[in-house]
Amino acid sequence: MRAYDIIYKKRNGETLSKKEIEFIVFNYNNGAIPDYQAAAFLMAFFLQKSTDEELFDLTKAMINSGDVLDLSSFHFPTADKHSTGGVGDSTSLIAAPVAASCGICVPMMVGRGLGHTGGTLDKLEAIPGFRGQSDKEEFLGYLKYANAAIIGQTAEIAPVDKKIYALRDATATVESAPLICASIMSKKIAEGAQTLVLDVKTGNGAFMKTFSESKELAQKMIAVGKHFKRNVAALITDMNVPLGGCAGNAVEIKQVVEILKGNLKNDLYDLSLELSAQMIFLSKKTPNLNEALKLAEKQISSGAALEKFREIIKMQGGTPKVLDDPDAVLPKAKESAFVKADRSGYISSMDARSAGLAAMLCGAGREKKEDKIDYSAGVIFHKKTGDYVKEGDLLAELLYNSERNISEARGVLENSYIISDEKPARYKLVKEIIA
Amino acid sequence: MRAYDIIYKKRNGETLSKKEIEFIVFNYNNGAIPDYQAAAFLMAFFLQKSTDEELFDLTKAMINSGDVLDLSSFHFPTADKHSTGGVGDSTSLIAAPVAASCGICVPMMVGRGLGHTGGTLDKLEAIPGFRGQSDKEEFLGYLKYANAAIIGQTAEIAPVDKKIYALRDATATVESAPLICASIMSKKIAEGAQTLVLDVKTGNGAFMKTFSESKELAQKMIAVGKHFKRNVAALITDMNVPLGGCAGNAVEIKQVVEILKGNLKNDLYDLSLELSAQMIFLSKKTPNLNEALKLAEKQISSGAALEKFREIIKMQGGTPKVLDDPDAVLPKAKESAFVKADRSGYISSMDARSAGLAAMLCGAGREKKEDKIDYSAGVIFHKKTGDYVKEGDLLAELLYNSERNISEARGVLENSYIISDEKPARYKLVKEIIA
Repeated sequence: MRAYDIIYKKRNGETLSKKEIEFIVFNYNNGAIPDYQAAAFLMAFFLQKSTDEELFDLTKAMINSGDVLDLSSFHFPTADKHSTGGVGDSTSLIAAPVAASCGICVPMMVGRGLGHTGGTLDKLEAIPGFRGQSDKEEFLGYLKYANAAIIGQTAEIAPVDKKIYALRDATATVESAPLICASIMSKKIAEGAQTLVLDVKTGNGAFMKTFSESKELAQKMIAVGKHFKRNVAALITDMNVPLGGCAGNAVEIKQVVEILKGNLKNDLYDLSLELSAQMIFLSKKTPNLNEALKLAEKQISSGAALEKFREIIKMQGGTPKVLDDPDAVLPKAKESAFVKADRSGYISSMDARSAGLAAMLCGAGREKKEDKIDYSAGVIFHKKTGDYVKEGDLLAELLYNSERNISEARGVLENSYIISDEKPARYKLVKEIIA
Repeated sequence: MRAYDIIYKKRNGETLSKKEIEFIVFNYNNGAIPDYQAAAFLMAFFLQKSTDEELFDLTKAMINSGDVLDLSSFHFPTADKHSTGGVGDSTSLIAAPVAASCGICVPMMVGRGLGHTGGTLDKLEAIPGFRGQSDKEEFLGYLKYANAAIIGQTAEIAPVDKKIYALRDATATVESAPLICASIMSKKIAEGAQTLVLDVKTGNGAFMKTFSESKELAQKMIAVGKHFKRNVAALITDMNVPLGGCAGNAVEIKQVVEILKGNLKNDLYDLSLELSAQMIFLSKKTPNLNEALKLAEKQISSGAALEKFREIIKMQGGTPKVLDDPDAVLPKAKESAFVKADRSGYISSMDARSAGLAAMLCGAGREKKEDKIDYSAGVIFHKKTGDYVKEGDLLAELLYNSERNISEARGVLENSYIISDEKPARYKLVKEIIA
């Protein structure tokens, strides 16, 4: 078998066998296939059709590049959630403790932010002392102790994905439903949770801008999940408007604390409950989804989820004081700048991507993987789509320490708001659920 | 400008600007763009449509990676011919001396064989002493001396093509009409001849297997030639049947000598005359093509072409005795094996690709670029498509020194002949002429 012939076959639109896909993934992982052949393969795969069978084989080959965690010794059902990436999306930090507080084991491996999107690992690391990087043994120890842990992906999980993703990132082969699906699902399946709840973002702040692209991705993820005998549900959710009231690291942690305390009920709260309920229902903790939703609400109102979050933070080295007095322990930005309404009217739309870019420019995110982030930086959204504003009202606030990109950030954020006379129709947060 | 964005644009099927194409070619040539980005670009270019304008810009950028020879100081018209590669095709070795003997300057740069196809440079190097590699200065000196020279491409001519071709060869992006066209035409235009006669092979022994693919390539080559203000004609010619009576290096040289002496008038002779006539007519040496054909015939029957070939060989260090007693100076294979007819009937088809592979397996060609070739090895075709044979008649003869691949070569060659009761329709050697 030769890489050339496999590239040739896919280039011609033919269907690859399991052995051919394994050959490419195995030999790219071990270095026998050079980057340039893998790049040509990925572009051919990107541009030609592929079957579900090829997607299953690709996912399987990527899983097999590393370990599969065996969580069968835990007596709890296991569940995880994953989002395709958005702005202001701290749902993981709410759903994980809510589900865990219901007696579900939540082995959550999360990522870092890149470009306009934030990353759960970065947000957690804004908490002084928090250790987000662990190895497999420590992770399993955490799960035994608290039936939940939130860490960065360990080196053993689908290691070829990192190599393939870096190559896709350099060769314009990212925005492909099967390639995105294989990348996400190989990691999620290797992580061992029986239930996977997938939040597929759609809109200008998402990887997949159109609903049909997002739906295609969601359907492929569901097909792969079922193929690997997981309980799966995918929610296609809006990412034209940033989720919640802010984008950044320390600011989002503070917001999560407020939600877990029952003090804040915004769209971030709503979506977190929906996702938690799916984790609870698919883990068979309740007979139906409605009961699961009620249970999730109760875990917040009773304080059980907050206490579970405290347990997780403490276990992973973070200061639990962040839950009692977040302002006292979270890093704070020295400077702020304001974006105000230039006319009166309704905010008819926001641009989640621009909002995320503005937060990145303040220092909250990374333009390139190597960039350092400023945990205290970010953007607070005082008004969002649908709100009525008067001329001069505060729309958003930029938090930063370095002036460097602030005029650009302010410009990007100003342009992200469109104000008009008509009140816009209320947008649907959860557009479709596929299970 | 970033390579990523240009790959992204072509991946999405958009048309690239001249500046974008220049950026890719220039920066790949100087090493600023890595192989993996170039590979992704080439696959996207391969699979998406491209415009004539993009093809012109690509060809121009490749020309600009090196020197353009200035032949304006020669008082002769300048003409070259090029074939897309076939089996038994020694037309260049006949057309060059025929045209040169008519007072045309023939600055011919030729290639080496790879896979089942032969290369003119290899054939010439079968002549003891022949120097096929020169630099630009020596080449111009040759042209001044003999108004013709046949050498391997010099390092100054479109150097990026070598790099791009090697990458295409490893990434299954060879068989693309625009990429093949840009590769050939960038070199041919940089070589400076005013007239270019292009022999586009079609059939199982050609790069382009179908007539429509071959025609597409021919049309693109004509469009590029005209864009660069060259006199151009393209002949689409059959490559289902090997050309002439043999495939190999020394054997083809001997055949060329017989043709130039007027002793042999086969399909190789016919096609060589057609190509020579195009060079003569487009160089305005005759008022029409028919007169050009007559002049070409006369140059052979009078011995003028043979004497011009003698001059070229002598000038380039080869022994002129090859023309007087080829058997005495050309290397000879020690062993031979025979392929015989397993039934009586007409040869209804041959497989030129298999015939070429058999010659390669005998040692006459290279499977990989690094392989050494055996000048004395090859295949003699005693019978070709359309001939009647009786069971046991000799079809072909394998000439070799090393046993190693001979049983495979014999099998390949045996399978390349199909014998049936019906006499096949006479196939057309020149299928279409595009000018």
